[in-house]
Amino acid sequence: MANQSITAPKGFQVKGLSCGIKQSGNLDLGVIYCATGAKAAAVFTTNQVVSSAVDVCREHTKSAKIYGVVANSGNANTCTGKQGFKDAVSMCRMTAQGLACEPAQVLLASTGIIGHVLPMKAITSGIQQAVVGLSYTAKAGLDFAKAIMTTDTKPKQASRRIKIAGKDVTLAGTVKGAGMIGPNMATTLCFLTTDMAMSKSLLNKAIKQAIGNSLNKLTVDGHQSTNDTAILLTSGLAGNPNVTRQDAHFAKFTKALNDLCDDLARQMALDAEGATRMFKVVITGAATQVEAAIAARAVADYDLVKCAVNGGDPNWGRIICAVGSSKARLNPDKLTCKLDRLTVFRHGQPVKCDVKQASQIVSKSEHTITVNLGMGKATDFCYGVDLTRDYVTINADYHT
Amino acid sequence: MANQSITAPKGFQVKGLSCGIKQSGNLDLGVIYCATGAKAAAVFTTNQVVSSAVDVCREHTKSAKIYGVVANSGNANTCTGKQGFKDAVSMCRMTAQGLACEPAQVLLASTGIIGHVLPMKAITSGIQQAVVGLSYTAKAGLDFAKAIMTTDTKPKQASRRIKIAGKDVTLAGTVKGAGMIGPNMATTLCFLTTDMAMSKSLLNKAIKQAIGNSLNKLTVDGHQSTNDTAILLTSGLAGNPNVTRQDAHFAKFTKALNDLCDDLARQMALDAEGATRMFKVVITGAATQVEAAIAARAVADYDLVKCAVNGGDPNWGRIICAVGSSKARLNPDKLTCKLDRLTVFRHGQPVKCDVKQASQIVSKSEHTITVNLGMGKATDFCYGVDLTRDYVTINADYHT
Repeated sequence: MANQSITAPKGFQVKGLSCGIKQSGNLDLGVIYCATGAKAAAVFTTNQVVSSAVDVCREHTKSAKIYGVVANSGNANTCTGKQGFKDAVSMCRMTAQGLACEPAQVLLASTGIIGHVLPMKAITSGIQQAVVGLSYTAKAGLDFAKAIMTTDTKPKQASRRIKIAGKDVTLAGTVKGAGMIGPNMATTLCFLTTDMAMSKSLLNKAIKQAIGNSLNKLTVDGHQSTNDTAILLTSGLAGNPNVTRQDAHFAKFTKALNDLCDDLARQMALDAEGATRMFKVVITGAATQVEAAIAARAVADYDLVKCAVNGGDPNWGRIICAVGSSKARLNPDKLTCKLDRLTVFRHGQPVKCDVKQASQIVSKSEHTITVNLGMGKATDFCYGVDLTRDYVTINADYHT
Repeated sequence: MANQSITAPKGFQVKGLSCGIKQSGNLDLGVIYCATGAKAAAVFTTNQVVSSAVDVCREHTKSAKIYGVVANSGNANTCTGKQGFKDAVSMCRMTAQGLACEPAQVLLASTGIIGHVLPMKAITSGIQQAVVGLSYTAKAGLDFAKAIMTTDTKPKQASRRIKIAGKDVTLAGTVKGAGMIGPNMATTLCFLTTDMAMSKSLLNKAIKQAIGNSLNKLTVDGHQSTNDTAILLTSGLAGNPNVTRQDAHFAKFTKALNDLCDDLARQMALDAEGATRMFKVVITGAATQVEAAIAARAVADYDLVKCAVNGGDPNWGRIICAVGSSKARLNPDKLTCKLDRLTVFRHGQPVKCDVKQASQIVSKSEHTITVNLGMGKATDFCYGVDLTRDYVTINADYHT
């Protein structure tokens, strides 16, 4: 099988290892290195409280060339005050020393528990080991994917290959879930690599659009983390003529990137904390697209809908209740609801339908809920997951 | 023990019985009767999708005199289209016939499953039995409290007695929980009775204020039902001079009503679906009171905070994450968080504190989370409950 990892595009060496941040001994630190210098674009959480890693990374993203990325799991370095900021700066400085570049040419991301100061001794030793163990292998890429996991049960990777002006261009990505997912500009930690030669401003456009259409459409618990970071790096080594305009090449690239990110989003949904099922909420007939997105999100975030999906229970009344309590305008006399293709509510009236069939739909590993608000022509969607006893167990016992 | 039920104030006869709406055979229909005619005020859900019961009740609340209230549990009569509206009108007409008044002088409330047409045969027989079985007893009041229960494990009642101009004035109320609680103007079903002589416009002021300060401050799952209704009836039989202005008598009455409603809200919290613990979120230092309320609500609705409380886990980072992702403005460098009196985070810096003591606080049946946003002087609060495996179980299996 082809390399699915972030080392698949040309020019990226990677390392993932365990340095002792996690008590479990699982992998918890990773470094990405692009020897030729990469162009980078990133999107971040819009939470008002952010990790020092986000503060520092946001600054460094402005650099023309990025040589390294350092990421850790097991500790978010958030609500850690001045010490947290110093530690974030140190992480970049140490990585830069190892990679022989400037600290501002290193990006940074942390994920894990909030409010604990980073164990810098472990991290120092981890960075020192990582920078001398870098490799182009799929195994190294997989280790990096493992090193950013928190409550994920499996690493998440995907890659895509396209032809641009006769040259092979590769895109790849890895992402971590699996709780506190309900972002609002960026999401979770996500690292995307490519070798497509293109301008930095287009790279910015591409990541915003791709994350907006994929990871930002997923809600596990409606919770926007303090650390959400998605980074797109290109080595530019594919050999294609440098793309600097929104032309057909750019369109092909963004389509592949969207598809890749959608793949990662779905992997996150299927591995969301405690989740056993995912569902897609499609809102049609909204007055505006913003309202369609609000209504879709309201349904996907509604605990009672999520519980019903967990029980394989076609309790569509809760879906209607959720859209009704959202800020999206609706016409109660035109409201219509479908589970996959089965209409259960039409123009404000319940429809006699086969309850057994409805239960079967809701019991599938994936199904689609469609609600027509009866107001206009705008549409949008959102991915959601079921709420389970295991979600509670995982999150009641995470800290101690 | 004194009568705690809604028959405690002078002038109210009540009946609660089982007519077969619930398959369990539990009580599911109740009637309140005020032979002298009561003044009434009510507040309702602000969900865009509402029960036909709400549509009809909202109209009837305008009547100068109300003789009866009919309520049922086991079926919300919501998303039931034209048939639902006809059935709501029928319920008032049948009750009016039994009580010898006009249909518009009967108020109405329904609660239970959404999307199912009412079993009108059962309801017809229930109303016919109820209107001939009315009684002033505490037992009858308790039966009414039971007849509005859905997933509540116990009936909820409270009463208060005050002196107004030398006369005994009694206030009493009953309320039902226990899920889909996250109202935004009114809440759940709540029936309040009193014998205080006062004007209808003051009655309106009193209920809005009391519900705003109590039931509206409680969130179980952030879900605003389609049926939320709170009704305040006064027989005016206490013998006090009729209160028509916002004077000291009115202040005394509203204080008692607020206290009564707070008591009911806390009973709801402690009996919320699956809940084992409740907590109070107090926001201080907000720029405005609206923002304080938004931030308090954000914390109380945050699944990860609710899970942490369930696990007795002082994971205060999630509290900070919740306020940070709310629309309330905050100053990250001045943010402070306390669990009861224990400061865990001060001016954006974690505070070394006794983790065991913090765990003990969070493990109590009730504790207070205080967050200072560092912006201004406004304050507000909210009640929340823990999220448990039982909540999921109850709501995964409710329908079928």
